Amino acid sequence: MEHLESSHVASTPEPPYVAVIFTAVQSDDLEGYGAMVEQMEALAAVQPGFLGVESAGTRHEITVSYWVDQEAARRWKQVAEHLQAQRIGHGRWYRTYRVRVATVERDYGPDTASFDT
Amino acid sequence: MEHLESSHVASTPEPPYVAVIFTAVQSDDLEGYGAMVEQMEALAAVQPGFLGVESAGTRHEITVSYWVDQEAARRWKQVAEHLQAQRIGHGRWYRTYRVRVATVERDYGPDTASFDT
Repeated sequence: MEHLESSHVASTPEPPYVAVIFTAVQSDDLEGYGAMVEQMEALAAVQPGFLGVESAGTRHEITVSYWVDQEAARRWKQVAEHLQAQRIGHGRWYRTYRVRVATVERDYGPDTASFDT
Repeated sequence: MEHLESSHVASTPEPPYVAVIFTAVQSDDLEGYGAMVEQMEALAAVQPGFLGVESAGTRHEITVSYWVDQEAARRWKQVAEHLQAQRIGHGRWYRTYRVRVATVERDYGPDTASFDT
């Protein structure tokens, strides 16, 4: 459990890299949802250019996946589309959602010498 | 409650804009944490260039705040530094954390005509 907690914060390399931010409000019908999430995460982890994924919340969910570049993020989107069509298109599991694709330009944490990096 | 749920997904304008992604694992000592979060969110909401904020999870937290540009995100960082020094610097509430500053280049959701935008 301790290990899982520590790994919640993805180990990403020096910027720049790409973040795909998925924010959603879940619906009341979550049948099959857990299996879909596991399938998506397993699939993401074996994609070229995958750096890591972070997820928090249940009813209010934020999942951020990290990719080496925009091209890797786009490829992942294509691979995931069939699953995402079920996940998102039918509006079954999510009341609403937003996907944002962003380039991370800087990051800092407890290991950063200065907070002003 | 319904209103709060709907507003979980921030209403952001057309990209580009800036996302500050804060990912953390909370510690066991959360005394004063709720008050600090409320203070931070109230303070963020009145900053110039603030677009919105999304937060999910408790023990595993992801909070994403959105800003009109890098300059607004930087100004917020300066304003927040005294609070963040307590929040982060002392390592009291967080076992570990990472802050990533990113430029959102595209986004899509249920209102997007094509999933391939």
